[in-house]
Parts: sequence; C-alpha cells; structure tokens
Amino acid sequence: MSPTLALACDLIARPSVTPDDAGCQALMAERLAAIGFRIEHLPFGEVSNLWARRGETGPLFCFAGHTDVVPTGPLDQWTSDPFVPTIRDGLLFGRGAADMKGSVAAMVTAAESFVAAHPGHRGSIAFLITSDEEGPSVDGTVRVIERLEERGEKIDYALVGEPSSSERLGDTIKNGRRGSLSGWLRIQGKQGHVAHPHRAKNPFHASAPALAALCAEVWDAGNDYFPPTSFQIANLNMGTGADNVIPGHLDAQFNLRFSTELTPETIQARVRQILDAGGFDYDLSWRLSGKPFLTPAGELVAATRAAIRAVQGIETELSTSGGTSDGRFIAPTGAQVLELGPLNASIHQIDECVGIADLDQLSVIYCQILQRLLVAA
Amino acid sequence: MSPTLALACDLIARPSVTPDDAGCQALMAERLAAIGFRIEHLPFGEVSNLWARRGETGPLFCFAGHTDVVPTGPLDQWTSDPFVPTIRDGLLFGRGAADMKGSVAAMVTAAESFVAAHPGHRGSIAFLITSDEEGPSVDGTVRVIERLEERGEKIDYALVGEPSSSERLGDTIKNGRRGSLSGWLRIQGKQGHVAHPHRAKNPFHASAPALAALCAEVWDAGNDYFPPTSFQIANLNMGTGADNVIPGHLDAQFNLRFSTELTPETIQARVRQILDAGGFDYDLSWRLSGKPFLTPAGELVAATRAAIRAVQGIETELSTSGGTSDGRFIAPTGAQVLELGPLNASIHQIDECVGIADLDQLSVIYCQILQRLLVAA
Repeated sequence: MSPTLALACDLIARPSVTPDDAGCQALMAERLAAIGFRIEHLPFGEVSNLWARRGETGPLFCFAGHTDVVPTGPLDQWTSDPFVPTIRDGLLFGRGAADMKGSVAAMVTAAESFVAAHPGHRGSIAFLITSDEEGPSVDGTVRVIERLEERGEKIDYALVGEPSSSERLGDTIKNGRRGSLSGWLRIQGKQGHVAHPHRAKNPFHASAPALAALCAEVWDAGNDYFPPTSFQIANLNMGTGADNVIPGHLDAQFNLRFSTELTPETIQARVRQILDAGGFDYDLSWRLSGKPFLTPAGELVAATRAAIRAVQGIETELSTSGGTSDGRFIAPTGAQVLELGPLNASIHQIDECVGIADLDQLSVIYCQILQRLLVAA
Repeated sequence: MSPTLALACDLIARPSVTPDDAGCQALMAERLAAIGFRIEHLPFGEVSNLWARRGETGPLFCFAGHTDVVPTGPLDQWTSDPFVPTIRDGLLFGRGAADMKGSVAAMVTAAESFVAAHPGHRGSIAFLITSDEEGPSVDGTVRVIERLEERGEKIDYALVGEPSSSERLGDTIKNGRRGSLSGWLRIQGKQGHVAHPHRAKNPFHASAPALAALCAEVWDAGNDYFPPTSFQIANLNMGTGADNVIPGHLDAQFNLRFSTELTPETIQARVRQILDAGGFDYDLSWRLSGKPFLTPAGELVAATRAAIRAVQGIETELSTSGGTSDGRFIAPTGAQVLELGPLNASIHQIDECVGIADLDQLSVIYCQILQRLLVAA
C-alpha cells in the first residue's frame, strides 16, 4: 500500500462530518511537524482549522483543503461502510475519498517527498485545512485568512484540492469561479377583487415587463475564462390560492452567477435600473455569496500545466464552471489560486470513490508543482 | 308595522343559512297560494326551490330571488342577534335584511297589492325562489330553469331582487353582468441547478414575454353597457424555496371578466395564440363560471325606469358591474332580466340592515312594474 493510499485510508476512517474534524488534522499535523512544518491550530467555534508552514520567506505556496465530509445518506445503500476505507476494482471507497481526503493525503505525501529531495527549498510551503468547507463556511478558511492578513502573512500560490477532474486525472483544473449574488424582490401592489380591477393593482401585471426584461437581459458576453453571466429566478410566488382575489404583493427570489466582467455593485445598479423603469413600488435585498475570482496565465498555471503534462501526458483544460469553493476566500488576498484534484463523478454520492492509481499520480503532480515553483533554477 | 316590514321580519327570524331554507318558502307559498298562485316545490339535493305561478298565458313576469343567507360571522360583533329582526334608527337589522329577504318580502306584498287591484291581469306572474344562491348554485335556480325549459315554460321578464342600489333606493339597476372565465396554466420547464442554466429550462424565463403579453392585452373596448374585458392573474407560483434550483414548472391561475363583445371560445383562442407564440410547453384548463348577459332597452327596462321615476323621483342608472347573480341562469333562456333591490352597502357584513321606508317603497315600485307590464293599456 502506497503512503498516499495508506494516509487516505487513515483519514477516511475518521468520520469527520462537518464541522467535526474527528482527529484528521492532528494526524496531518504530526506528519507535517516531522518534516519541519510549524503547526498552528486555529479553532473557531465548533470548527477545527490547521495552519502549517515550512519556511520563513516568500514565495509562499499553500495547499488548501478540508477534512470535513458531507453526510453519508442512507447507510443501507452503500456497498461498504462509508467510514471503513475499502478497496475494490482499483478504487478506494469511502465518504470523502474524492472530496477531498484523497487530495489531502496526496498533499501531505507530496510535501514529504519534496522536502526529502529539497530540504533547503526556496520560499515556504503551507497547509490551510478546515473542517467547515461543506457547511456554512463561516468559521473555516475565511477566518484563517483574516488571521493571516492581520499579521501580514501573504499567500502567493494556493492549490485547492477540490476534485476538478472530469474524465481523467488532471484533464481539468479550475482557475477561477463565477461570483454568486442573490436577490429577494417584493413587488408591491394593491389587493382587491378580480371583478373590480380598477380599485386594485396587480403586482404581476405592473411588473411583468420589468421581470421579462430581467430574464432577457444580456449581462455580459463572458470572457476568455468565464461564460456569460446568467440570471435565474428560482422562486416566484403571488396569491393566496383564492381565484377571485388580486394579490397585494409578489415575491421573487433570483440568483446571478457572474463573471469577472461585472461587479456586484454594477449588477445591483442594473437590476434597479430595470425595475425602476417599471414604475411600481418594490423592496429588494441582496446576499453576495462570493465574488468571482480568476487566476489567469502565470507561474502557478504554468507550473501546474507542465506537471500534469509531465506526469499524465495530457493537456489540461482551464475551467471556471461549477459551484463555489474555499478558493473564493483566498483569491481576494491577491494570491494565484488553482483547484486540482481527482475525478468528481462520485462526490457527495453513495459509494464515493477515488482511483488508487490516481492518488499516487496526484501526489507526484503536486510534488512536481512544488519543484517547479520552489526550487531555484 | 307595514305588511312588507312584517313579512321581512318573519323571514329574517328563520335562520336560513345556505342551503337551509328554514321554512321561508313555505311561508311565501302560503301567502301566494292565498291569492291564486299555483305552488310547486322543486327540491334538489339539500336545496329548496319554489316555483309559483298565477295565470296560464304570456307574457310571463317572474320575481326571482333567494331565501338563503350567508353565515353571520362572529356573533359577538353583531349589535343585535342576526336572526332576531331588530329595528333601530329607521333600519331593520338582521342577516338577509338587504340580501335579500327584504326584497322577497316586497315581492310578495307587491303581488298581493297588484292582484287585489287587478285580479284579471293579463299574462302571468311567477316566483322563482331558491335556497342555494349564496352557495354552490348547482341545485338552485339553474335546476328550476332546466325543469321549466323541459316543459316549455318560458319566462319573458325576470326581476331579480339583488340589492342593486348604491346611495338611494333605485339609483342603480343591473341590466346585465360580465362573464367570468378562469384558466389554470402550467408552464413546463426543466429543473436544474442555477449554476448550470444551459442544462435546465426556467419556465418563467421561457414564458415571461407571453405572460406579460397576456397582462397587456387589450381584449376589447367594452361597449355601451360593459366596461372593457379585464384579465387578472390571481395566483402565480414557481419554485420549492431552494435558492439554487431552477424550477421544473410554473403554475398560474387567471380570471377574465368579459363583456358581450367576446365569447369564451374567442377568449380561449386568443389566450392560446399568445401562449403558442412563446414556444414553450404548457397545459391549460378552463372553467366558465358564467357567460355575460345583457338586457338592453326594452319593455322591462322601460317599465322599471318609469316605476322608479314615479315612486322615487329619480333617474336610475343601468349598470353591469359587480359579481355574478342567478340572473346568469335565467338570461340564456331569452328572458329580459333586471336586478333591482335595496342598498347594498351592508350585505354580507356584520349588522346587515335595510331601510324600513325603502322596504315599503320597493314594494310599491315592484307593484308599479307589474302594472306597466301586465295591465292591458
């Protein structure tokens, strides 16, 4: 059993459902301390966070990830116990195998291999690990980043271990994510009887052209890295069920996934402009789940592509699709942020698994990225 | 106490909440039989119906009305017991005082006065009274009309006692009502994640232009008797509450109040035309609550206007506004149909009441209408 597979099994055996770390970070810390990392545990509330750093100078390369996993779902549907790491058909099964204990294990063994070969590497290596990535994400990575910023500790390169691969390990890396902005809109009308519409004001009739305009709006054309910004109404509700009453208000809840071509402020102004043109009263509140971030061509992208090409013999594809990740908390500091991890087909599902060969290859890729960035030419 | 007031009190004292007649029709039948009416009780299900006719020839003038009343609402909010007729300040209080036991009492005393003066009147007088006007209206007037049509008995003039007056007795009579047509629309989309809109189809985004077009549509311009047809969406619902899911369908429920310029068939065709242009899938079902009807200038309108002018000294206004009435069941037979009754400000409310003087005046007006139509010139 390879060191990466062995460590992945040790981590899966710890049932660390968010926010419980279940001892995963202590295990990692022990391994990292042994190769010269300075260990800091930074718990916030119920959340465990680990910050480990080897080296005092820049550039600072950071492996970022999480030890928490999503719940198992119905246990009787699993072929084997989700917290008993089980190997079948070249695959390691267990909750978190792909998201992302496999990646975390590969990060640790990659650091071990790299330090053994280059004990006097330039710059610094760090680990930023939380047990709150699958949950509210309030006391995890975001709090650690706040702490680092308070003391002026600056990450240059962050490699997040999220399962980015689609068909084959390394075929896709995420070099950014769209922003996510939600709005809650209440259109005010005036209730009345359908037989007397002149005494009432139907909130949908008043706002239908504006709502249609919001749906039809071309927010941007996207760019080289991002698809066009999309607007979706997820919930729309008006009426009490009575078939003869003009309702007094309409509620709509919408979400935008937006590119780096736009800011939350410009989107909000454009939404208000479209609504204001409708000539009706409304209330509107917002929640920004994450700004978009992007790591365009640069040292981290180049090193990662070269490492994948060398180990896997394939050209990787840059993508900004999919949901959010903790990269959104690191990118605003100015760090280059990439996500590279195993295949994501089974994540959050019954019988989650990762390829055993992929685990070892991932460790080699991670190690080569360190070599390309932290070994003086 | 005048005969009309006394009879109104006797009727109010019978707690005839729909569909319970509580003996009101038996009381009326006794009075009418005494002046030569042939009595038929036509019960259907739980509903009591009375058909009483005096005379064998045409023209047939029919008083139409109902003995049932709506529920009282909170008893402790009534100043006096709603089923104990009580006189205060020149008003008779009690559930049904205005809608429409006062009218029914005035119809009976008008017939009594008229028959006493004109025992050999031409044509026939009838009463069509139900205990199912405030309820589902399934086993009431509509069933009696079916029975009459089966045996070829044809109403020429129907005077419905609904409280039509606004500020002063007789200021308004209803010579028609708009039609009411409801639709239930389901727009089909395809559910998905808001982060992947290209894999889903948002049913509101697909249909927003069509829905806005339905709201903006000018269905007709109305005519001399009817306001323009109105379309109102009463209920609109989409989404499960989750803020990151594009819903699979949208439900809308709408209602049209339409004039005699349109038929249900033309409306349905136009709605489908607007929806079909949107290029999305939908299911649509309809319910026709009533076709519009209209009694334009003619013998009944002329007689009623003249009677009101003679008794009240005012010009009455023709109106087709407001909700539905049982007139919708009589009009399709080809009868001229008018509604004339007391002030409607208190109907269906706490402390429902009718003016005592108005009760007597209403009886006189009803009697004069009979004279103008059933006494040979």
